[in-house]
Amino acid sequence: MSAMRIAASLFGTLLLLAAGGPALAYDEPVEKREFVLRDFTTEQGETIAEVRIGWEAYGELNAAKDNVILICHYFSGTSAAAGKYTAEQERPGYWDAIIGPGKPIDTDAYYVVSSDTLVNLNVADPNVITTGPASLDPATGEPYGLDFPVVSMRDFVNVQKALLDSLGIERLHAVMGASGGSVQTMEWAAAYPEMVPRAIPVISPGLEMPPYVVGLLKMWNMPIEMDPNWNGGDYYGGTPPLEGLSNALQLVTLNALHFDWAESTFGRSPASEEIDPEAAFAHEYKVEAGLQASGDARAATTDANHFLYMSKANMTFSVADEIEKIEAKTLFIPAEGDMIFPPFLSELAAERLRAQGLEAEVFTVTGPFGHLNGVFNIDQAGEAIRAFLEE
Amino acid sequence: MSAMRIAASLFGTLLLLAAGGPALAYDEPVEKREFVLRDFTTEQGETIAEVRIGWEAYGELNAAKDNVILICHYFSGTSAAAGKYTAEQERPGYWDAIIGPGKPIDTDAYYVVSSDTLVNLNVADPNVITTGPASLDPATGEPYGLDFPVVSMRDFVNVQKALLDSLGIERLHAVMGASGGSVQTMEWAAAYPEMVPRAIPVISPGLEMPPYVVGLLKMWNMPIEMDPNWNGGDYYGGTPPLEGLSNALQLVTLNALHFDWAESTFGRSPASEEIDPEAAFAHEYKVEAGLQASGDARAATTDANHFLYMSKANMTFSVADEIEKIEAKTLFIPAEGDMIFPPFLSELAAERLRAQGLEAEVFTVTGPFGHLNGVFNIDQAGEAIRAFLEE
Repeated sequence: MSAMRIAASLFGTLLLLAAGGPALAYDEPVEKREFVLRDFTTEQGETIAEVRIGWEAYGELNAAKDNVILICHYFSGTSAAAGKYTAEQERPGYWDAIIGPGKPIDTDAYYVVSSDTLVNLNVADPNVITTGPASLDPATGEPYGLDFPVVSMRDFVNVQKALLDSLGIERLHAVMGASGGSVQTMEWAAAYPEMVPRAIPVISPGLEMPPYVVGLLKMWNMPIEMDPNWNGGDYYGGTPPLEGLSNALQLVTLNALHFDWAESTFGRSPASEEIDPEAAFAHEYKVEAGLQASGDARAATTDANHFLYMSKANMTFSVADEIEKIEAKTLFIPAEGDMIFPPFLSELAAERLRAQGLEAEVFTVTGPFGHLNGVFNIDQAGEAIRAFLEE
Repeated sequence: MSAMRIAASLFGTLLLLAAGGPALAYDEPVEKREFVLRDFTTEQGETIAEVRIGWEAYGELNAAKDNVILICHYFSGTSAAAGKYTAEQERPGYWDAIIGPGKPIDTDAYYVVSSDTLVNLNVADPNVITTGPASLDPATGEPYGLDFPVVSMRDFVNVQKALLDSLGIERLHAVMGASGGSVQTMEWAAAYPEMVPRAIPVISPGLEMPPYVVGLLKMWNMPIEMDPNWNGGDYYGGTPPLEGLSNALQLVTLNALHFDWAESTFGRSPASEEIDPEAAFAHEYKVEAGLQASGDARAATTDANHFLYMSKANMTFSVADEIEKIEAKTLFIPAEGDMIFPPFLSELAAERLRAQGLEAEVFTVTGPFGHLNGVFNIDQAGEAIRAFLEE
């Protein structure tokens, strides 16, 4: 079996479960829009002359503009949470199973807004609009590279806030997100408590990034920084650090999945029937070839510097000192077998919020995908989400 | 705080728990010995003209030579399981808490043998004797490099078997090992069932290496192979791939430990009080600096090619097809929070052995160290081990 067929098989397995099937898809064509913000000041006091981010919405904004649910995306995600941009598109957005007419996040009732973040990884995805080190610095006409200011999850949220301001939205019905999106969710709850009555952090670190995951993020960055083509972040116009980026994305994939997934997707098969992994170093197992092929494929649309900036934004996350500002009631949705943000982190955060007199529930999803159960198996939490939104 | 002080602090925390204290140490001076084996044939049919491995023993061999317990070491371990080579040595062997006079593995009753394996990582440790890619090939007078044959855990066991043959030992009382040592333990039980009435696999993958961990091992190898100084394995006499090796060892450390360890050892502190990790890429958290310092320190005594060969030997482990040969009763000792070999793998293996009509028990140790609870907190299983050995 060729490496690409293995990659196809890998992603086929993953995405089949994510897709749900055409009958379930949010069925309006999704329009990707652009939001432009001038002279954005970061949390660290730096100015970005022009921020452009992509966004999309499902459902209709009501007259009172008070039916808005904001969805924040994960580390390697995009705004594409539901539906399809075109009829030809193979699969709908990552949470299409719970967003749509009559679904738990019911687009007959809610106006669901989803945006790309700053330093989104998928720079070469034609449906993504983002601003980061790969963007042209208007002052020089050249890509920023590492001259782009370090940005934080609070900065991501402040850009989203400006987007909502531009739409005249003064209060949200809820904020929700998976993984890095759950980080933005808690930043929202701490930064704009008067706007956030409900927060749904899915596969969440809780109130701050655990030091163990800061270590993981250092390891994710490592292969990029080892790649001579990274060149200290200065590779635009030259050869990008694809080897390092592929290796970084392989680490992400492995950490985000689980033993059960590897067992059922690859087993202990060799990469092809002709080889014996016991006989030679170059003879690989299928899981090795599958990781390699998936990393290589994803590297082609990912920017290495954006990856490093996204890691940094995750490392620096903490609202632990701002917990008393939070007013939202919270529904944590951890995933069984999650080795990035294990369920105990959601339990701890819920306890801390309850100790502040706030309501906080925990609903755990299960499945073979580890961390990514929170993306692929979110339908398990559908009725819990519906009830939480209606309360 | 300097990087080296962080490393010292990191290892101080870890090793304090491993050490136990002088009153508990196996108190005979340990003599490291050498075993030489000519014309060793590997499982794959290759010949190694001269194998040299180090070994040591605690206690006395009885006249019947039937009081022998064999200890097999883990991935980055050595034969130093108990006691000290010299009075000046800072700390005793890694399982000193359970090996010694009156301890669960009672050296007043048992003769405990522990050997270095083939391709042991710690080539530059003066107390380690091993044979692998860094050894001189007698045919050329040069280091083998990647011309050294691929070796398996079965080969490790066959060298240990030859060592025991040389001592006139025909049957073991038990075989025991942690992690990679648990792999050798199950190889022993399958390869020489008539010699192995009792097996104690600690922090074990069970009967084969899970594909998920094959993926982890690929990731551990990756930074070495990315380092230009690795040079396809040909670096002897030149500059070794220390950066890649440090990064590989950092991945091992992180995977082998746990959230609780990172939280209590580092918290979310910056690497020094003068810096703010939110302000600049170069400003690190303490956990980042600690991992880096520990990886750098360990890289200095580790050989990169030996690391790759040890990974391969782990990847290829399977006795799943030989389970019906096993006669031993087994005591699995998994560790709570283990993210390399989670406890469910021991439970599954125990079930499979019971389905063959064999006795198999599971005793789980706990603590903040993840996988390494099986090394640092083995004393929790002391009385279970004592009883198992006496049955």
